[in-house]
Amino acid sequence: MSLLVVGSIALDSLETPFGKKDDVLGGSATYFSTTASFFGPVQLVAVVGEDFPEAHLQFLRGRGIDLEGLTREAGRTFRWKGKYGWELNEAQTLDTQLNVFESFSPNLPQAYRETPYVFLGNIHPELQSRVLDQVKAPKLVAADTMNFWIQGSRPALLKTLQRVNLLFINDAEARQLSGEHNVVKAARAILAMGPSRVVIKRGEHGALLFDQDHIFACPAFPLSEVFDPTGAGDTFAGGFMGTLASASYDKVDGQLLRKAMVMGSVMASFTVEKFSLERLREVKRPEIHARFAEFKKLTHFDDLGPLG
Amino acid sequence: MSLLVVGSIALDSLETPFGKKDDVLGGSATYFSTTASFFGPVQLVAVVGEDFPEAHLQFLRGRGIDLEGLTREAGRTFRWKGKYGWELNEAQTLDTQLNVFESFSPNLPQAYRETPYVFLGNIHPELQSRVLDQVKAPKLVAADTMNFWIQGSRPALLKTLQRVNLLFINDAEARQLSGEHNVVKAARAILAMGPSRVVIKRGEHGALLFDQDHIFACPAFPLSEVFDPTGAGDTFAGGFMGTLASASYDKVDGQLLRKAMVMGSVMASFTVEKFSLERLREVKRPEIHARFAEFKKLTHFDDLGPLG
Repeated sequence: MSLLVVGSIALDSLETPFGKKDDVLGGSATYFSTTASFFGPVQLVAVVGEDFPEAHLQFLRGRGIDLEGLTREAGRTFRWKGKYGWELNEAQTLDTQLNVFESFSPNLPQAYRETPYVFLGNIHPELQSRVLDQVKAPKLVAADTMNFWIQGSRPALLKTLQRVNLLFINDAEARQLSGEHNVVKAARAILAMGPSRVVIKRGEHGALLFDQDHIFACPAFPLSEVFDPTGAGDTFAGGFMGTLASASYDKVDGQLLRKAMVMGSVMASFTVEKFSLERLREVKRPEIHARFAEFKKLTHFDDLGPLG
Repeated sequence: MSLLVVGSIALDSLETPFGKKDDVLGGSATYFSTTASFFGPVQLVAVVGEDFPEAHLQFLRGRGIDLEGLTREAGRTFRWKGKYGWELNEAQTLDTQLNVFESFSPNLPQAYRETPYVFLGNIHPELQSRVLDQVKAPKLVAADTMNFWIQGSRPALLKTLQRVNLLFINDAEARQLSGEHNVVKAARAILAMGPSRVVIKRGEHGALLFDQDHIFACPAFPLSEVFDPTGAGDTFAGGFMGTLASASYDKVDGQLLRKAMVMGSVMASFTVEKFSLERLREVKRPEIHARFAEFKKLTHFDDLGPLG
């Protein structure tokens, strides 16, 4: 089934301990849609400026992503400049130029309005709500957010959350949103805000999926080389939502959600291996399946048996 | 099979955001031996002072722990005073009084010298080596260490490591010991120092087991209330080594090591639920087995199946 994503397309300038790149392809919707395109049809809603390279659009089109919802506006493309230290966990934002993204007002093509799976990338929560006003009867709405909106647009965010089934959020943001330091308490507080499920992302420590009654813990794939963590969270969401949307059965049950978590981790583990979307551009389906199998070896163990 | 532990017995004064306790039972050998005693026979080598309460010895004896290697010396018992903030990850040491522990020189009773499983708690690496001089043909030697020895007694520690099969170490210490920031590289560097296996403990993020060819990731049990993390690492080691020593089969293989990791996490999850050893004193075997089963629910997922 189809999957709709609304978010940013950016030109990123990145600095990590391993190198520096200017004006490379980035943005939440870019990472998400590229990743999700490995699993099935994706519809993209975003905006770029006059300076956005045609080659990038060709790349997205080449991945089978529906670009009817992508508009090109007068002005420059959204730009983000960030720097990572040796810790490679949180980026230090050096510069943000919203440019055409500042007046972004997502308008869904008719063909997108009945899409069953919706991912609201990290944009203003009022815009997220405006997207939901336009979709008819989504089967599952997932969203991402960030500290900037939690702090600056809390009422709008809380309104949006009441219409969201699943929230992706990192651990620091979960604490900020909930006012709870403990991750289990933070998750419960977020579940009380509307979503029936919350995924708390913990970078190199993996991710936790909570619903009212269950917790699933998925590690990050242990990599000896991490080059650029940019886009890891959106890649995770793309692998997760792509897995749900592509399932051959109709029920979003616990086992499918667990597979989605692992696939999110699998895809994120590829993204961080190279700069920008370089690794996602080259990775092949057999590698993805092989790494999924590696996750099983990484985490599974036998019953206790005759011990003790 | 029997399990030998050499380490500290302490009277701890603890302060957490949830309360304060003075002169409660603590020490690496205490947490380790109490935990391991759930799984089979344990032999303890440690020292206490004249002020050490008889009731604590009765408790250890009551758990079936062999105290022949425990000596009572003139002077006061080792005391540690620590404080935890809301993060509840790393203790701030407020005071350390070595007392009788300062001149501790482990001397193994004859009956201990053929014990197959040996755990060298976090003591001076030269003392750890001296213990190994006294054991005959151990099947598996595991050790713990800390930043203090990594920084101050590195040559002695490196010597000891050449005689150790498995090292338990936390992530910050693994970085310090190896000089590698990346956890996979840190583990590989430590494996090159002697141990054929290393367990990197990451507090609330769980633990990773590395050997030359495999990695096993075990999460920490997600708890909504953590009262006192003191002893979590030694409890982990006690559950781990107790599982190995109690196995009904002779081969320390990958599956047994995985179970040992999970049992370490299970036991540590109990310890942190209350102050000192309070929770370990009351926990019952069925609860332990039930939580082991919970870990399976927490981590296991189906094969990918017909997706994508």
